[in-house]
Amino acid sequence: MELADEAIRLADLPAADRRTIMILGHEASGIPSEALDLLDRAVEIPMVGTGHSLNVAVAGSLVLYKLAGLL
Amino acid sequence: MELADEAIRLADLPAADRRTIMILGHEASGIPSEALDLLDRAVEIPMVGTGHSLNVAVAGSLVLYKLAGLL
Repeated sequence: MELADEAIRLADLPAADRRTIMILGHEASGIPSEALDLLDRAVEIPMVGTGHSLNVAVAGSLVLYKLAGLL
Repeated sequence: MELADEAIRLADLPAADRRTIMILGHEASGIPSEALDLLDRAVEIPMVGTGHSLNVAVAGSLVLYKLAGLL
């Protein structure tokens, strides 16, 4: 999950149709560019309010539930 | 959020269209019945795997993102 130029919004992430690996980026520095180049897709989680980042367990859970088709 | 008879699945929870209060139930005992009677809607979060409950911050975040229309 990353604020990458080509990131899609979490709401637009379809359920996974194959085995999927999720990479979670650091809240400040994100995913290293050499790793980012290897990913099929970057996902951005929209935020509301004044926080700068989500707790990583929360961010990961949101994406996993979406990937599982449960949201 | 509760395993109540009339609970809807999280995937079916629409975005909030008014000021909304979310009540989180205890992982074992849930929401007390006298409080449950006051609620407009009960929401169940489907789980996958062997865990018995979600961390309350994760459960609350999933519902809040859904209520905010961001999932």
